[in-house]
Amino acid sequence: MKSREDVTNLILANKVQKSITWKSVAEKIGCSKEWTTAACLGQMTMTKEQAEKIADIFDLPESALAWLQTAPKKGASGIPTDPILYRLHEVMAVYGPTIKELIIEEFGDGIMSAIDFNLTVAREKNEAGDRVTLVLSGKFLPYKQF
Amino acid sequence: MKSREDVTNLILANKVQKSITWKSVAEKIGCSKEWTTAACLGQMTMTKEQAEKIADIFDLPESALAWLQTAPKKGASGIPTDPILYRLHEVMAVYGPTIKELIIEEFGDGIMSAIDFNLTVAREKNEAGDRVTLVLSGKFLPYKQF
Amino acid sequence: MKSREDVTNLILANKVQKSITWKSVAEKIGCSKEWTTAACLGQMTMTKEQAEKIADIFDLPESALAWLQTAPKKGASGIPTDPILYRLHEVMAVYGPTIKELIIEEFGDGIMSAIDFNLTVAREKNEAGDRVTLVLSGKFLPYKQF
Amino acid sequence: MKSREDVTNLILANKVQKSITWKSVAEKIGCSKEWTTAACLGQMTMTKEQAEKIADIFDLPESALAWLQTAPKKGASGIPTDPILYRLHEVMAVYGPTIKELIIEEFGDGIMSAIDFNLTVAREKNEAGDRVTLVLSGKFLPYKQF
Amino acid sequence: MKSREDVTNLILANKVQKSITWKSVAEKIGCSKEWTTAACLGQMTMTKEQAEKIADIFDLPESALAWLQTAPKKGASGIPTDPILYRLHEVMAVYGPTIKELIIEEFGDGIMSAIDFNLTVAREKNEAGDRVTLVLSGKFLPYKQF
Amino acid sequence: MKSREDVTNLILANKVQKSITWKSVAEKIGCSKEWTTAACLGQMTMTKEQAEKIADIFDLPESALAWLQTAPKKGASGIPTDPILYRLHEVMAVYGPTIKELIIEEFGDGIMSAIDFNLTVAREKNEAGDRVTLVLSGKFLPYKQF
Amino acid sequence: MKSREDVTNLILANKVQKSITWKSVAEKIGCSKEWTTAACLGQMTMTKEQAEKIADIFDLPESALAWLQTAPKKGASGIPTDPILYRLHEVMAVYGPTIKELIIEEFGDGIMSAIDFNLTVAREKNEAGDRVTLVLSGKFLPYKQF
Amino acid sequence: MKSREDVTNLILANKVQKSITWKSVAEKIGCSKEWTTAACLGQMTMTKEQAEKIADIFDLPESALAWLQTAPKKGASGIPTDPILYRLHEVMAVYGPTIKELIIEEFGDGIMSAIDFNLTVAREKNEAGDRVTLVLSGKFLPYKQF
Amino acid sequence: MKSREDVTNLILANKVQKSITWKSVAEKIGCSKEWTTAACLGQMTMTKEQAEKIADIFDLPESALAWLQTAPKKGASGIPTDPILYRLHEVMAVYGPTIKELIIEEFGDGIMSAIDFNLTVAREKNEAGDRVTLVLSGKFLPYKQF
Amino acid sequence: MKSREDVTNLILANKVQKSITWKSVAEKIGCSKEWTTAACLGQMTMTKEQAEKIADIFDLPESALAWLQTAPKKGASGIPTDPILYRLHEVMAVYGPTIKELIIEEFGDGIMSAIDFNLTVAREKNEAGDRVTLVLSGKFLPYKQF
Repeated sequence: MKSREDVTNLILANKVQKSITWKSVAEKIGCSKEWTTAACLGQMTMTKEQAEKIADIFDLPESALAWLQTAPKKGASGIPTDPILYRLHEVMAVYGPTIKELIIEEFGDGIMSAIDFNLTVAREKNEAGDRVTLVLSGKFLPYKQF
Repeated sequence: MKSREDVTNLILANKVQKSITWKSVAEKIGCSKEWTTAACLGQMTMTKEQAEKIADIFDLPESALAWLQTAPKKGASGIPTDPILYRLHEVMAVYGPTIKELIIEEFGDGIMSAIDFNLTVAREKNEAGDRVTLVLSGKFLPYKQF
Repeated sequence: MKSREDVTNLILANKVQKSITWKSVAEKIGCSKEWTTAACLGQMTMTKEQAEKIADIFDLPESALAWLQTAPKKGASGIPTDPILYRLHEVMAVYGPTIKELIIEEFGDGIMSAIDFNLTVAREKNEAGDRVTLVLSGKFLPYKQF
Repeated sequence: MKSREDVTNLILANKVQKSITWKSVAEKIGCSKEWTTAACLGQMTMTKEQAEKIADIFDLPESALAWLQTAPKKGASGIPTDPILYRLHEVMAVYGPTIKELIIEEFGDGIMSAIDFNLTVAREKNEAGDRVTLVLSGKFLPYKQF
Repeated sequence: MKSREDVTNLILANKVQKSITWKSVAEKIGCSKEWTTAACLGQMTMTKEQAEKIADIFDLPESALAWLQTAPKKGASGIPTDPILYRLHEVMAVYGPTIKELIIEEFGDGIMSAIDFNLTVAREKNEAGDRVTLVLSGKFLPYKQF
Repeated sequence: MKSREDVTNLILANKVQKSITWKSVAEKIGCSKEWTTAACLGQMTMTKEQAEKIADIFDLPESALAWLQTAPKKGASGIPTDPILYRLHEVMAVYGPTIKELIIEEFGDGIMSAIDFNLTVAREKNEAGDRVTLVLSGKFLPYKQF
Repeated sequence: MKSREDVTNLILANKVQKSITWKSVAEKIGCSKEWTTAACLGQMTMTKEQAEKIADIFDLPESALAWLQTAPKKGASGIPTDPILYRLHEVMAVYGPTIKELIIEEFGDGIMSAIDFNLTVAREKNEAGDRVTLVLSGKFLPYKQF
Repeated sequence: MKSREDVTNLILANKVQKSITWKSVAEKIGCSKEWTTAACLGQMTMTKEQAEKIADIFDLPESALAWLQTAPKKGASGIPTDPILYRLHEVMAVYGPTIKELIIEEFGDGIMSAIDFNLTVAREKNEAGDRVTLVLSGKFLPYKQF
Repeated sequence: MKSREDVTNLILANKVQKSITWKSVAEKIGCSKEWTTAACLGQMTMTKEQAEKIADIFDLPESALAWLQTAPKKGASGIPTDPILYRLHEVMAVYGPTIKELIIEEFGDGIMSAIDFNLTVAREKNEAGDRVTLVLSGKFLPYKQF
Repeated sequence: MKSREDVTNLILANKVQKSITWKSVAEKIGCSKEWTTAACLGQMTMTKEQAEKIADIFDLPESALAWLQTAPKKGASGIPTDPILYRLHEVMAVYGPTIKELIIEEFGDGIMSAIDFNLTVAREKNEAGDRVTLVLSGKFLPYKQF
């Protein structure tokens, strides 16, 4: 394992071959399914205990342990082509300025933190067809005069 | 008013000069503050009644009415530089693949609709500093074999 | 097979070497030639039965089966240079705004779904030279006020 | 009117203000609604008679007549952000290689012409929600050895 | 004044014509020269009192006041060509990964805030030629497990 | 070791597996932690003595020595997606023109050198949460008439 | 040979090592040197007989035969940096609009086909230095009203 | 007339309104239709006599004369979307490397000049449909050792 | 005059209309023709005396004086399409790495300054055709350990 | 050795490991150090004798000989991030239009050839710090009417 990307790719390959679900992984390491998935996809830093459990679940070699505990290179560049990811991008292209206006109207000049942040992905039952509900929660950080 | 962009710019300029809030506009046209703001920012199509109220609130000329009732060109191109908009982009760059994995694990192959979609922006009280909560809800649309 | 791309490349290589036609594959798995080809090109998710038949036809290793049943990363980025793909791009660059105007005139503000969607590719006999006919059918999805 | 773009913008502005439909324009000039719309959007060259009728319908100044009869600069650059246009782009990103494979399987190496081409946009009644049907028809042009 | 950009351009034009220094502006509004300059360049939101003083100093029209008190669209896109701005970009291209490594070594996984942030620009006397010293100070924000 | 990139990747991989800190490396070669880290990340040229110590610390093969003493290809292209690097980019997008104005006001037309340059990264204790302090110091270089 | 690119690269490598000329290849397969070179560079589809001769000339493995008879992915993306290719690009950037105007003046609205197309590259003797003459011939395809 | 672009736009507008052909212009100034068109489109520098005739033909103001005699900014950026221009681009993307190989095989390492260059655009009668013939002739310039 | 760009455009327009040469301007302000031209093109900062002379030569309004004495936004973005500018770009694309290698071999790790820099453009008589000679001279700036 | 890039990389790797200087290579093959370095970096075509000497100096395998004698793919794409290369780019961004104006003023409309071109890189002794002097010499090529 020469990089975190190697570890992520092995996790994904073994997940597919072994039909492991993210929810079951989350239960085993005792975190939300959202944080757990992000961590397995190479976006978060694990503790030693978490790394050992993940290595056990996905049958990773010894050298993967150190990478899972190292702060990774986060994010993906460009505008995605995958339809599910593009829809998220489009939501922000269409509604982003609306979100900005309403945050500023409520809080003043500042941002919603993407670091002091959490996320839930849930199913919302609906007779006209079930819905995906995403809840994004980030601390408001105000700009300050200096 | 030669285009919807002209109308949007005039709404924004008059909003600033008259200190109008989006919430007060929403109350007057009887829709959510999120849809109302998006519509005023040139992303949604209004009914005749909505257009007339908006023209009244923002002191728009007669020719604005038809543009407000016409389906606009939606979305913004590229990756935004404004910090508040960039954070939304970053959230999707960091957590987008996680959202994809969890939607597929819950629903199977498909997407969260960005059309049959709604949004709320709210303040979440918190002792460590209030938070911005965004709730995104879109119908799940499955890929079908044909 | 470490990724769906590996599987797709092997399908393509074996198709060429064995002179397999997409139509014959479609007949064997009982779907349209269009969906079947898209699935073999790594854009669709197969059932277990489909995956097994595809593995058999293209002589794929055991590990390909799980990848074929996993929702893939879809789409291609950028503007294609291949002449046949570019012509499709050009059609949308030249006629896209026309299609938009006519959908909106007929249905109101909304989109043609690219998910609840199907496609046929056919030969149209013509004395002045046969023609390619593409039929694209997608559910109309209206924007709704919220 | 200093350019065809000026003419197109005036057509669009007057269409919105006068609530003219593309279908009614097409009937008056005796062409398909698809070609007529494309021509009004600045993509096609009109005859003198067509230009005069269009100028009459949209109340265009004398100088517009020559522009409508001049071969325009066609097409739009980049990948569109408008959701309805993006879905068309996505369809080609997801299914383009499938279309290529099936054209080649049926016809051999060549392309579907985007010039000797026509298009229809229609409503398809459907109990699960009406659908948009696009029919694209282009002459097959083979590559020839030389 | 139809936008904040209009106000910024007028400030810059009048600054040049009247030979006003940023330091003198900062003294008059009682803030640091760095925040004051950023605010005059359209990156920060002013209070009513600050806006009035700025309007007075730069001889701005009445309508500028509201824009100066409105949260602006911040940031600049792309990689700058101006040599002084490019050197700042280059410093981050050459030393950015070093800064990342050392922040993580000292604090763990997280970021230096660009919102809870301040900046000073100073002259450092030096016999071999005076130096520019930039001090950037931002709150450390840790990633948290959720 | 066929390139400096190979050497850098091996340093990074061995650093992670052996839990080596940049500070300890800097102490061993007697330079600042900032220069040392930049050099290990492939941005600076080492002396023979430094290269030998680095090879010893990170267990590098003989062929790495020559690469460490060769002037490398510096810098990274594009706008980073990693949140910590992006914040540095954003600081320059928001405050860059401010820095430019204040350098010119203090020194006249010229730049802050990115070559005759040094950097420190430090922790600033703060009750409201510790801060990251970056000090960038570069020689002022004036444009000269010729 | 896992792709046409593999075949093309092997043809190029063996051409260089064996000092084979394109003209001699063209003579052996009985086509123009222009079509033959394009086909060897992976842009055209060969017949079985042509593929066998090419495999013989360039000492290609058995698996190359099927790839040479398969319609390839054509074209190259972006703007070339190689001086000889850039000059061709520049000619079209400088004279392209001229060519467009003169085609339209002679033929009306339409294009020069790039499919029903042929090319010759020749030396033109000239006392002031020999010249390269390129003759490009493509069928005129008119836009038609529909 | 504040720039050559202003002059070019006025030439184009007046050409359309007055139905002037490029061939008639070329005859009047006694140059090829290709050079004349390129010059009128703002790509070439005219002599005083040519400029005066062009100003006369297109009814240009006095201030246009100097611009027509000034070396212009040549070329157009990016990849064109107009179908007729795109086909020229595609020809170079598909056949450019072929042209390069054949020039080098005939002449050795060097380029076809785009400066010591001329062009003809002609109709080629053909029973299967007339063809457009472009002849590009440029001096061969060899790379020289130094 | 609302910006330096306005001043530059007026200088260029008046230069063309009045047939002023850069050399004559340089003589009048007593600087090299290279620095003078760069300054008139908006890349350098003038003294009060220089600005007054330039305003006199090019008949500029009073408000231009302050802009000419203000440090401008320098440089141009992207890769130029104009043939003369592109050749300069190509020289650096083809020979840039050679220049880098030879600077480092002669001086060690560092750069040629683009600030402490001067330039001459001259004609070199040559029987085979006169040549353009550019001499670029920049101070060597070494990277220093810190 | 499957491509010229393979040969170039091996030359660079062996140069570093064996501490060979470009000047010594140039002496051995009897050309300027500038042309020799460019040729070794894969930008120029060597004669058989030169290729044999280079292969000897850098210990290249037999198969490298043919590649060194083949016209390579020249140039590098994009805008470089390496500081030394970027400075060269910046010089052209800041002074390119000046060079253009002065070439045209001296020679008329045309270019400085990048093919009939040579380059020297030299040290210029200077008390205030030695300077790098680049001399670029290219034949002037005029645009000609046709």
